[in-house]
Amino acid sequence: MKIDLNADLGESFGHYAIGNDAAIIPLITSANVACGMHAGDYNVMDKTIQLCKEQNIGIGAHPGYNDLMGFGRRKVDMSYDEVEALVTYQVGAMQAFCQRHGVKLNHVKPHGALYNATFNDRKLADSIVAALYKLDPSLKVMGIAGGHLVQAAEDKGMTGINEVFADRNYEPDGTLVSRSESNAMIHHAEEATAHILRMINDHVVKAKDGTFIPIQADSICVHGDGAEALKFVASIREALQKQHIELAAI
Amino acid sequence: MKIDLNADLGESFGHYAIGNDAAIIPLITSANVACGMHAGDYNVMDKTIQLCKEQNIGIGAHPGYNDLMGFGRRKVDMSYDEVEALVTYQVGAMQAFCQRHGVKLNHVKPHGALYNATFNDRKLADSIVAALYKLDPSLKVMGIAGGHLVQAAEDKGMTGINEVFADRNYEPDGTLVSRSESNAMIHHAEEATAHILRMINDHVVKAKDGTFIPIQADSICVHGDGAEALKFVASIREALQKQHIELAAI
Amino acid sequence: MKIDLNADLGESFGHYAIGNDAAIIPLITSANVACGMHAGDYNVMDKTIQLCKEQNIGIGAHPGYNDLMGFGRRKVDMSYDEVEALVTYQVGAMQAFCQRHGVKLNHVKPHGALYNATFNDRKLADSIVAALYKLDPSLKVMGIAGGHLVQAAEDKGMTGINEVFADRNYEPDGTLVSRSESNAMIHHAEEATAHILRMINDHVVKAKDGTFIPIQADSICVHGDGAEALKFVASIREALQKQHIELAAI
Amino acid sequence: MKIDLNADLGESFGHYAIGNDAAIIPLITSANVACGMHAGDYNVMDKTIQLCKEQNIGIGAHPGYNDLMGFGRRKVDMSYDEVEALVTYQVGAMQAFCQRHGVKLNHVKPHGALYNATFNDRKLADSIVAALYKLDPSLKVMGIAGGHLVQAAEDKGMTGINEVFADRNYEPDGTLVSRSESNAMIHHAEEATAHILRMINDHVVKAKDGTFIPIQADSICVHGDGAEALKFVASIREALQKQHIELAAI
Repeated sequence: MKIDLNADLGESFGHYAIGNDAAIIPLITSANVACGMHAGDYNVMDKTIQLCKEQNIGIGAHPGYNDLMGFGRRKVDMSYDEVEALVTYQVGAMQAFCQRHGVKLNHVKPHGALYNATFNDRKLADSIVAALYKLDPSLKVMGIAGGHLVQAAEDKGMTGINEVFADRNYEPDGTLVSRSESNAMIHHAEEATAHILRMINDHVVKAKDGTFIPIQADSICVHGDGAEALKFVASIREALQKQHIELAAI
Repeated sequence: MKIDLNADLGESFGHYAIGNDAAIIPLITSANVACGMHAGDYNVMDKTIQLCKEQNIGIGAHPGYNDLMGFGRRKVDMSYDEVEALVTYQVGAMQAFCQRHGVKLNHVKPHGALYNATFNDRKLADSIVAALYKLDPSLKVMGIAGGHLVQAAEDKGMTGINEVFADRNYEPDGTLVSRSESNAMIHHAEEATAHILRMINDHVVKAKDGTFIPIQADSICVHGDGAEALKFVASIREALQKQHIELAAI
Repeated sequence: MKIDLNADLGESFGHYAIGNDAAIIPLITSANVACGMHAGDYNVMDKTIQLCKEQNIGIGAHPGYNDLMGFGRRKVDMSYDEVEALVTYQVGAMQAFCQRHGVKLNHVKPHGALYNATFNDRKLADSIVAALYKLDPSLKVMGIAGGHLVQAAEDKGMTGINEVFADRNYEPDGTLVSRSESNAMIHHAEEATAHILRMINDHVVKAKDGTFIPIQADSICVHGDGAEALKFVASIREALQKQHIELAAI
Repeated sequence: MKIDLNADLGESFGHYAIGNDAAIIPLITSANVACGMHAGDYNVMDKTIQLCKEQNIGIGAHPGYNDLMGFGRRKVDMSYDEVEALVTYQVGAMQAFCQRHGVKLNHVKPHGALYNATFNDRKLADSIVAALYKLDPSLKVMGIAGGHLVQAAEDKGMTGINEVFADRNYEPDGTLVSRSESNAMIHHAEEATAHILRMINDHVVKAKDGTFIPIQADSICVHGDGAEALKFVASIREALQKQHIELAAI
């Protein structure tokens, strides 16, 4: 058995520092690196790819809406053609930093509101996949487990990566409980560990109504902001290793 | 005999239109396309590469400082490492649009203040060339004829393109007369034509003090903004063809 | 009888020019001047206020969402508190340019998606009005005739300005026919003139289904982009003057 | 005897937090609040003015170059007219937040590269002062002690505030030792305290070459980023109070 641990990185901008990339990188197997629109900048991208290379983790581009002030968490109204161009621009810039450091871009995971917008919009998912396919059909596409984005990638003959969340509760339809609800988050590492082991071993997730729904877990999203978050990740990591589940990028 | 005619394109942004790309493209052999920082955006890049492809002209990336308000014409103080990252980002994004449309990026020409800054700063020229070399050593590098940027590229084993200006007067040291001086520009097409024919045929340029200085002309920069500018280009084009000088991208 | 003619101005940005402010200003009685977020910049604001002062027209601030690339035409998801701060910032900056030129800011009209968002959202209208009231309760508030924004201003004891459109058709509920429909626009000056004379004289507008609905017209929105648009405005202006309707800012 | 303690605040942007405003405000008597161009945004300005009001400290606008990525620390090439407009815009926006919260803007201190640029450029200082004078001649103008900006303000009949630095060494000509030199900073609170007491009591500063040069200290700049910085400020504060030097905004 094998699983990927991914985190969003490279979100600092100019004088503004965010996250603790150097501390989280040794704990994960894949990074989703911001591409300079919702977060990150060309200097941060350069340093982040270098850091990922040193620790030999899988590198992903993490394109988002062009909205630094909203950190990519606000939906931006744009046509599907514009989405293709938006994704092409950011993933191309990231490919260049990979080329510069002699590594290969492994996957792409849309960020924030762009990620969420694929939940209900297959055409949007298709637009993102169309952009990526033209750039490099061997790019893997990470999206919410069982969602449109993974399906769109697989329909195009690309590899989809089903992403699950260690610290988020699920609705009975397989979507995440909204952050605006009180039970959106799982705060305890043991609970989170049980949550993901069930997904990996039994291919089900316990939804908020207590029902078990089928899920495919290829990669687990974790967070590295703050000492607590790092401990959380380390404890999940340890639990997975105890179960002899191999940690590796897809 | 052979010469390239280049122009800066793709400088529109969002709702703001600038230039007349569809009219100038059939008159030139190479385009320098803005990369979304000093001008242009991902949508404009997508459409501009498509236009260039349709007319089969040489495509260049035209990276500049990240200063939309100043249109890349103001020097931005940054380290050489930052310049490498700045250029990598923009050229990578442009490579992606070329890949998307099935064409190849042929050359890179820095824009505005970044172009000018290479006049007196060999280390800056080396930084730009270092960034490009890592992305693709077959990229050609366009800079002012006889200047640091072309030299830096050639020292790295890359192809340099010596750019000359049809409508600008020269100082005796081979630099351009500053736009702040009254005799910076050549306004008449016949004078401009004589100016560039002398460069192509005799490998000299007449400086503002009347002396003739040696110059190598590989590509001529022209402008497409306004009906007058388009006539100017058409007339230069015709004069070159009369002299059986082949017009082609490098 | 008296009516105001307003147009959106000061939308250029940096090197990017848009509109023809010097030509439209003599034809109108009020200007809505962009505040440097969706369009305009501090230099443009300075010059535009100077132009408005010279022609002695009413000056309005035209705040929009902070989205230069989308020209303020895309809805940005933000809380009502954020809207208050957004409007405070932009109107404050405009008040400063008025103070600098010794004129008074007369009115405020939200731009684009922010204007449209008040159609169905009274709380948004209240937020905008709350921000303006704290800055200067004597500011007049321009919104679509009969809509939430004018009502919110009047409920707060401020002066509302009911805006009507010379070149737009109306739905039976008093909203504008969406630009995505074929009959959104009125293209002929005579038809537009009849349209607005009916609003001014009879206090009704003919909706797209042929019914006449009551409307209060305090200010007519016109456009100045292009020679055709300017002729359109001049012809409306002439028709109003023939009817002895006085043209004046509110 | 009386002195002002000032710090730069309100530098967070969108999702990016910087500094510890709530902790430093109770220790200082004046705040220089970023105006949304080099740092800060409309939401941050709104909250920061509210915080300053609650602690009843003097409020200053802190306008900088429009360069978020460079945090206003890079010189931007612009004409004096553009500087006037740049300052008008930002200070006007800040006046609006003061008006909104029922407080008065007390002073203006340019930020970073704009502040530094006044060291050698009297015309730049005059441009800034001209902009402020037109907005409100009662605004106080803070600049480096004995420098062009204070002089320009006083020549215009405005109040200048001579700013000194608790943690910076001085050149014999009264300018600051550049941050690129090893002895730029004073790291120990006792040394800093002696440094400023000498300025307040004896009206001299000990320059890096050991000579004593005359200086007028109206306001001391301190920093609040990090626990160490806060202790540093608290210890200076205590030392001043022991000497019965009153701490108060100008």
